[in-house]
Amino acid sequence: MDLSISPKAEELRERTQKFIREQIIPLERDPRQDKHGPSEELRKELIALARQAGLLTPHASIEMGGLGLSHIEKAIVFEEAGYSCLGPTAMNIHAPDEGNIHLLEAVATEEQKERWLKPLVSGRTRSCFAMTEPTPGAGSDPSMLLTTAVRDGDDYVVNGTKWFITGAEGADFVIIMARLEDGSATMFLVDMNTPGLELVRKMDAMDNCFTGGHAVLQFTDLRVPAKQILGEPGQGFKYAQIRLAPARLTHCMRWLGQARRAQDIAIAYAQQRQAFGKQLGEHEGVGFMLADNDMDLQTARLHIWHTAWLLDQGVRGNFESSRAKVVCSEAEWRVVDRCVQILGGQGVTGETELMKIFQDMRGFRIYDGPSEVHRWSMARKILGSKENK
Amino acid sequence: MDLSISPKAEELRERTQKFIREQIIPLERDPRQDKHGPSEELRKELIALARQAGLLTPHASIEMGGLGLSHIEKAIVFEEAGYSCLGPTAMNIHAPDEGNIHLLEAVATEEQKERWLKPLVSGRTRSCFAMTEPTPGAGSDPSMLLTTAVRDGDDYVVNGTKWFITGAEGADFVIIMARLEDGSATMFLVDMNTPGLELVRKMDAMDNCFTGGHAVLQFTDLRVPAKQILGEPGQGFKYAQIRLAPARLTHCMRWLGQARRAQDIAIAYAQQRQAFGKQLGEHEGVGFMLADNDMDLQTARLHIWHTAWLLDQGVRGNFESSRAKVVCSEAEWRVVDRCVQILGGQGVTGETELMKIFQDMRGFRIYDGPSEVHRWSMARKILGSKENK
Amino acid sequence: MDLSISPKAEELRERTQKFIREQIIPLERDPRQDKHGPSEELRKELIALARQAGLLTPHASIEMGGLGLSHIEKAIVFEEAGYSCLGPTAMNIHAPDEGNIHLLEAVATEEQKERWLKPLVSGRTRSCFAMTEPTPGAGSDPSMLLTTAVRDGDDYVVNGTKWFITGAEGADFVIIMARLEDGSATMFLVDMNTPGLELVRKMDAMDNCFTGGHAVLQFTDLRVPAKQILGEPGQGFKYAQIRLAPARLTHCMRWLGQARRAQDIAIAYAQQRQAFGKQLGEHEGVGFMLADNDMDLQTARLHIWHTAWLLDQGVRGNFESSRAKVVCSEAEWRVVDRCVQILGGQGVTGETELMKIFQDMRGFRIYDGPSEVHRWSMARKILGSKENK
Amino acid sequence: MDLSISPKAEELRERTQKFIREQIIPLERDPRQDKHGPSEELRKELIALARQAGLLTPHASIEMGGLGLSHIEKAIVFEEAGYSCLGPTAMNIHAPDEGNIHLLEAVATEEQKERWLKPLVSGRTRSCFAMTEPTPGAGSDPSMLLTTAVRDGDDYVVNGTKWFITGAEGADFVIIMARLEDGSATMFLVDMNTPGLELVRKMDAMDNCFTGGHAVLQFTDLRVPAKQILGEPGQGFKYAQIRLAPARLTHCMRWLGQARRAQDIAIAYAQQRQAFGKQLGEHEGVGFMLADNDMDLQTARLHIWHTAWLLDQGVRGNFESSRAKVVCSEAEWRVVDRCVQILGGQGVTGETELMKIFQDMRGFRIYDGPSEVHRWSMARKILGSKENK
Repeated sequence: MDLSISPKAEELRERTQKFIREQIIPLERDPRQDKHGPSEELRKELIALARQAGLLTPHASIEMGGLGLSHIEKAIVFEEAGYSCLGPTAMNIHAPDEGNIHLLEAVATEEQKERWLKPLVSGRTRSCFAMTEPTPGAGSDPSMLLTTAVRDGDDYVVNGTKWFITGAEGADFVIIMARLEDGSATMFLVDMNTPGLELVRKMDAMDNCFTGGHAVLQFTDLRVPAKQILGEPGQGFKYAQIRLAPARLTHCMRWLGQARRAQDIAIAYAQQRQAFGKQLGEHEGVGFMLADNDMDLQTARLHIWHTAWLLDQGVRGNFESSRAKVVCSEAEWRVVDRCVQILGGQGVTGETELMKIFQDMRGFRIYDGPSEVHRWSMARKILGSKENK
Repeated sequence: MDLSISPKAEELRERTQKFIREQIIPLERDPRQDKHGPSEELRKELIALARQAGLLTPHASIEMGGLGLSHIEKAIVFEEAGYSCLGPTAMNIHAPDEGNIHLLEAVATEEQKERWLKPLVSGRTRSCFAMTEPTPGAGSDPSMLLTTAVRDGDDYVVNGTKWFITGAEGADFVIIMARLEDGSATMFLVDMNTPGLELVRKMDAMDNCFTGGHAVLQFTDLRVPAKQILGEPGQGFKYAQIRLAPARLTHCMRWLGQARRAQDIAIAYAQQRQAFGKQLGEHEGVGFMLADNDMDLQTARLHIWHTAWLLDQGVRGNFESSRAKVVCSEAEWRVVDRCVQILGGQGVTGETELMKIFQDMRGFRIYDGPSEVHRWSMARKILGSKENK
Repeated sequence: MDLSISPKAEELRERTQKFIREQIIPLERDPRQDKHGPSEELRKELIALARQAGLLTPHASIEMGGLGLSHIEKAIVFEEAGYSCLGPTAMNIHAPDEGNIHLLEAVATEEQKERWLKPLVSGRTRSCFAMTEPTPGAGSDPSMLLTTAVRDGDDYVVNGTKWFITGAEGADFVIIMARLEDGSATMFLVDMNTPGLELVRKMDAMDNCFTGGHAVLQFTDLRVPAKQILGEPGQGFKYAQIRLAPARLTHCMRWLGQARRAQDIAIAYAQQRQAFGKQLGEHEGVGFMLADNDMDLQTARLHIWHTAWLLDQGVRGNFESSRAKVVCSEAEWRVVDRCVQILGGQGVTGETELMKIFQDMRGFRIYDGPSEVHRWSMARKILGSKENK
Repeated sequence: MDLSISPKAEELRERTQKFIREQIIPLERDPRQDKHGPSEELRKELIALARQAGLLTPHASIEMGGLGLSHIEKAIVFEEAGYSCLGPTAMNIHAPDEGNIHLLEAVATEEQKERWLKPLVSGRTRSCFAMTEPTPGAGSDPSMLLTTAVRDGDDYVVNGTKWFITGAEGADFVIIMARLEDGSATMFLVDMNTPGLELVRKMDAMDNCFTGGHAVLQFTDLRVPAKQILGEPGQGFKYAQIRLAPARLTHCMRWLGQARRAQDIAIAYAQQRQAFGKQLGEHEGVGFMLADNDMDLQTARLHIWHTAWLLDQGVRGNFESSRAKVVCSEAEWRVVDRCVQILGGQGVTGETELMKIFQDMRGFRIYDGPSEVHRWSMARKILGSKENK
């Protein structure tokens, strides 16, 4: 057993930390942002900064233009990137592009990689991933998929509505999950400007850090050539799994960075603010919260590292990534909530980055499967195993 | 012991419930609102509706034009009013006007009542209450008050900065807490358009239901005639206490209505949404949350009723109102947080009123004393009492 | 609304408090006790003391020899009785006798009352209630009842095993729940010395306050005359409900007294112990626990009062008594657990009464339906109601 | 980074697991035990079994007769040993002997090692550690030490009272912490049969797994030769630290085994018990608890591994071992408490090992510093660090 960080990862960690602190944090209050993240102009500037720092799309393979990071290296680097809300966008490791890059590397054809993956890795384009649907369609339960793709000559004709599609506005292409006539699920690569694809409306979401926000997409007789099927037809659920386990874990990593930022804001406040005759932090009621935060941050980090290491060993890790996702989202949420409490009135205003982090973090307990769905899935595995550990 | 609701209160309860459901909820999506509540035009319309329904400013005395509600009657009526975010504004029982009306009735001179209280009760004007200050001034610890009022002839000259002043924008007058040269605290009634009083900036707060939002006020050689001292000089902290215990409790009441609204939204969603082969609510993971919510709502209600009843008996009730404030703010927060979890993605978007309630509710654990300050104050009393219960 | 305690109840409260403090607490370390409560000799002495104080079996009707207390009066008196682990035994209001007395008053024939109820009310006899069975029989789910009663002439022949039967050792009679041939459930009154009834073994339970402890009973061709059917045949589940709602609530009351005792022990310790340069209680980490305890105690009390008042109004109160049971058992448990933490090493030894209270209290979250079963039942009602509150 | 278990550790893990399951668990109900653990006869048998299995005192150095385990190897092996309450006694790794062996190896003179350490490593003797004192002496705050050692010729004369001394009954020697005339703290090695040393009484503690239980020791003019000072005079607090960090962590390890045992008992029960129409574990209310347990167990394990690895790197690890101690004790307690809830009535009786585990585990949140003391100490470090992570 060896829990040390490799020299390569440590160098990347320090470089990323320095990059975020010196180049990204100063841009956090840049006016070229709205509730749905940075404008395309600002995003391009951020991408350029990361490229210059040698930190762009580090999880992509070296041949595609990335740094070919292992999962454990991602754990180290993404935590640092998440320290600023703008960090993942700058380094092109934000959701859903990060997961899409991973998926395309794993299953796309060479032609598809050339057309959609390469520009994505370079930060020239953005993408989105259209799986979830409004009631009564697929939400946490993917088997309820209602969007259909019907074969018509060399094309498929797609109809349906997708909901809570992160990053749709401004995206260049979308990966659509639809149901074929045989009931199987299939993924399609579709340019956003294809006729029949409409961005119906932006959603008014609580979070602020997803570039492009979230939107509702409508497909009306959307015609997609068969060669735009991602990988193989009928493999939609399998591919979703390929995307999911690592994508869940990278959420944990980035949000760990955000939670750590919240803790640092709270520590600074507790050191400087006076109340009832002493430094705020000297009140046990506050100090204990800081200690609990430290525990929760380290708990999240250790689960991330353990699961990342497993994935690096080639283990599928569905159970462990479910577990890490619940542990991290709940732990990181507690951290951020306590930080708000420590800051008091300041915690519920935009005086610091904390309020934004708080608003962002709440969704993490829901995205990629609410904690309840993961608990349910874990319980089945725990009970089903013939021999318990 | 009798926990029944009196016929008078029950009639008011039903009337308020009907008023909120039929007249106020339909206006919740009225476009004449921004992050800081309804526009003045919309507010006036809401006030007119409440007046017509005989529900305007019900907590003011009958001679001032209210309904002269007892604390327990307020408990019943304000919960119903809080069921819509717009309800308290319509009925003129929102913070800080509600507490200011109470305070002015208790300590203002007749002349002051005529000039400031009457228009406030009628809904023609709005007011704010300027006590909290930015670091290093008075926050949770009022003894750190830095704003000064120096006698100069028949006037006082006020200097200082106030922070997180709810409802300041659009208010007609403000009650300012300042320190005299002898160190004592005093309250002043000041029209907002007085020279030397500047609204420096609006704060970007997470909550949405406080008409006028929150602002920073700056007093620069603000000259206030001595007769505008509210009540007696040097009584600032005493008056703050007079205002505080009931004001804390009315927060609990209004927010209980909001939390109940959240629960009703969650129940409706759990009844209608399907997942993993059955109604969402039939999953114990969801049903248990609804049950826990019911417990928390009833816990909050019972603490409110008990404390309101005590206040009606003429008991000062500082300990009990502290306790009720912590119990209610924490319980109602848990309710709203669970509802968000039940709604999943919908819970973190503006698709329902829930997200707004969630964002509003967070501050409640902080406003009027964070839970930690109340626990600390309770502990001192528990430990100081010679004979324990 | 009126939350005052009536003069009658207040007089009883004070009398009970004085009785417990002066006459019962001094006997808490009397050596005539083992893990399963006081010896019969000591029990008789306790009963005599309560009779002398006019506090024996106060919940029984006046004609049966009790004080005819209403539910709300029970709430006041039983909390005081529970302040000592021996209090309920002394006042003859401990489980299961207290519930059995209630049930027999409600449904027994005159002859049955004469034979079984009267001696029970007078404290001369003890009883037990045999419903729960070992796996795969009836536990939390009463529909799984396996014990059978087969008609044979004027008798029924009962076979089965009952498990966790509180107070069985030393009891004079038992109420047995069994299934008739038609599938319906029926209760039988059976003297413990009847042939065919065997107390197989005592169970090694964590709690210490149930006189007689808990035991396993075996019925082997146990012959019971038909006239010993309690009330009507086939009404077993209905009678169980009649017994249950009030029995649940009296558990809440007695255990509230225990939790309050724990808090008083913790307060005394926090006042006297020094650590790290100050009184233990002045550490916020300790003071906050005392404040949280106070909140939880008052929450439990208010739910008890509210539900008791409802029952006094003739409301069946199944939902509310489920809710009160969960709220109280969880809140009182938190109190006791925090008190253990405050006492540190002393909290996990028999140096004070606290350890015993801790060991007793854990079962409360399980007895009369685990919290999970009540949440489930509440959820069904919440979701099933067409119109939500 | 490499989280794999080395082949050496894996072989030891499997051997220990097999040893515990096949040889120790069958002895768990051996009658030669009382509330304070196994009789000396049974203990000797257990020791012999471990010696035979090559698993005796594995943490001692090879020259002393142990296996010279690293901290991380201890983490692996001790978790397995803790799976049975008797395991640590059998393998001679129970508290306080385990920590005393560590301390003596680190600081004792050769002569002292020969006389006291060697027989201890071989399992022939037992020892205890006398630091904590009754009020107003040293409890969580060691600076309150009241026991004195006054130089008199070649001897020291020790007076004082020690409290909660684990394993004192039946121990062969004790390490006494006392205060010299210059105020410094010093440790003494004293045979239990030395005149002036009296075991005043056994304490009635909730836990059952500490061989010898806990006792009160009285020193009345206890004369100790100066050469029986452990290591150097005046180094008492320093030595306590040397002993403490690893001792804390081995508690976490052993108790993790106990918590895992509890989880396995709960899983087996949830698989076999039916309720409300399905397997108990299929109820989400139960399944979610099993999932939460799995998370907490893994969280504890990862913190143990991380801290053990740090100690193996030569890091002092006070902050991390404090953190691990709080995280593990709280997490493992939650596991055990949930398991009790799953088992229902069975959980609060001696029908399974669970009740014993529950009663043992409660003390873990208190022993070696209550969670509150560790939080306080962590907070000071978090706030004091100039540069936060």
